[in-house]
Amino acid sequence: MSTQPIIIVTTGGTIDKAYFDALSTYQVGETMVAHMLKEARVACPWQLVDLFRKDSLELTDDDRATLRQTVAALESDRVVITHGTDTMIESANALVDVASKTIVLTGALAPARFSESDATFNLGMAFAAVQCLPPGVYITMNGQVFRGDQVRKDREQGKFVSVTS
Amino acid sequence: MSTQPIIIVTTGGTIDKAYFDALSTYQVGETMVAHMLKEARVACPWQLVDLFRKDSLELTDDDRATLRQTVAALESDRVVITHGTDTMIESANALVDVASKTIVLTGALAPARFSESDATFNLGMAFAAVQCLPPGVYITMNGQVFRGDQVRKDREQGKFVSVTS
Amino acid sequence: MSTQPIIIVTTGGTIDKAYFDALSTYQVGETMVAHMLKEARVACPWQLVDLFRKDSLELTDDDRATLRQTVAALESDRVVITHGTDTMIESANALVDVASKTIVLTGALAPARFSESDATFNLGMAFAAVQCLPPGVYITMNGQVFRGDQVRKDREQGKFVSVTS
Amino acid sequence: MSTQPIIIVTTGGTIDKAYFDALSTYQVGETMVAHMLKEARVACPWQLVDLFRKDSLELTDDDRATLRQTVAALESDRVVITHGTDTMIESANALVDVASKTIVLTGALAPARFSESDATFNLGMAFAAVQCLPPGVYITMNGQVFRGDQVRKDREQGKFVSVTS
Repeated sequence: MSTQPIIIVTTGGTIDKAYFDALSTYQVGETMVAHMLKEARVACPWQLVDLFRKDSLELTDDDRATLRQTVAALESDRVVITHGTDTMIESANALVDVASKTIVLTGALAPARFSESDATFNLGMAFAAVQCLPPGVYITMNGQVFRGDQVRKDREQGKFVSVTS
Repeated sequence: MSTQPIIIVTTGGTIDKAYFDALSTYQVGETMVAHMLKEARVACPWQLVDLFRKDSLELTDDDRATLRQTVAALESDRVVITHGTDTMIESANALVDVASKTIVLTGALAPARFSESDATFNLGMAFAAVQCLPPGVYITMNGQVFRGDQVRKDREQGKFVSVTS
Repeated sequence: MSTQPIIIVTTGGTIDKAYFDALSTYQVGETMVAHMLKEARVACPWQLVDLFRKDSLELTDDDRATLRQTVAALESDRVVITHGTDTMIESANALVDVASKTIVLTGALAPARFSESDATFNLGMAFAAVQCLPPGVYITMNGQVFRGDQVRKDREQGKFVSVTS
Repeated sequence: MSTQPIIIVTTGGTIDKAYFDALSTYQVGETMVAHMLKEARVACPWQLVDLFRKDSLELTDDDRATLRQTVAALESDRVVITHGTDTMIESANALVDVASKTIVLTGALAPARFSESDATFNLGMAFAAVQCLPPGVYITMNGQVFRGDQVRKDREQGKFVSVTS
């Protein structure tokens, strides 16, 4: 409904976890976002800003300030952010006063490189939400759309839960 | 943002095409929607209404009347419809006067059973759009959100295109 | 165990079926064999000979003569052939008198482009069998290894069955 | 070619690595072998012996003694073992004097749960090799078949290499 490109800012998180056999460890790898958007044959303009490759528990206050500056400086007013789920809400809070942009954070409980993953569905949700919602900060995860200031993570259940303020 | 279940009405189309080796043919098979929603670990309530298993070129005026009645009779005001792309717009038009429901049609250019498919992304988009948009009829395909009365299919390019009325 | 490259001759069949949305039909598409071998990180030398793109029911006697000539003329004595299952046995018979080569035919009941398919497993079997077996013609399908002259297809059960001569 | 069931003994390794979001760690999870064999529509009899769920670096001498006893006690003379790649060769050596069985070790460089993985291809290779080869211990990885006493792992290149004794 808009002709501005949708910008996707990647920060790392489970969604981009890869397996490095030589090290026998899993780490955030090259982002899978472009791969998913091509597989989805996305026909509207989009651009990728590859910002961090971190577990979200490793993101510092400085990182969040950088994220905030990066997003605020974007020309487009439609921004999707891929992010680890552990501190997604903290980053949403750090973005709350960015004016006149629709910002949607999303991520995944299972890496996009897995054959069974919630990554593609969640990214699709973010892509629709960023086009449908008024300016503000939102989170789309596992079939649900949350306002960034009305959500908490229930780590035991492994899901996000709505909080009425 | 709503506590009503999201209803998904399946009508067939490429999204649910399966391969039947005994017949060496592809036909609409059992719907993949529940499989995709489970893989996406969808945490909000949803219900499936398995209405048709047809190529959308085979859908008749009677079928569209049945679709319209089925959707109008649903208690929930949030309805996703999976549908073949060839006549998705005709069905959107047939649903235009259903009052006070948000209805989102989606489908796929490649079957959900393929390892490379736009199905899951499109379904994720529909799931977000149906929660974010006001009552009306919409189509979500390949990264784009269309109003049901402002879209046409460009068959040569294999994509939907916005039409300003 | 050999340093000669393994040659894979493709003839079409379900294993390489693709979906062409513009035509709403399934046809044999570009072969998936190279994709599967790269995903399997195959570390021994191999070459692809892209011979036919046919349903195996469409293969003619002339085609089988061409297949026989092509295989006989290969420098390597280790040859895998991907083939539709309906007439795989006829082609095996046509290859029986090719001297001093190990020839393994394989295929799939579900296209390699599907996320759930027997294609990769069957191709892996063929790759091992062609390195382990003495000269002769063999078929590997769905966990089983058959001599080309001691097998028939049970179309109702959708599987190959051993026949003792 | 045999009517005895093929026994698959699982010991863990990368092939069965899963991601546990609640812990943000990867560990050996429930084995994917049965899933892969069903997807491959394996039509010959097989049985699963779920022995260990360990990184192969964690396998002790006691574990290898247990593995040896378990394999030696099996009624079938066709045994596939899934195993981490780091110490696959040590386990192959520990099995060398098991009499009159064909034993094939296999594994993967990328977890079977990944959409891009060598797991299914390698398992297919093992399934064919165990039916085609005379009694002895073998390794099938990434397109290659090795005798268990004529192979070493080149960790830098991430692959197995033949060693002539």
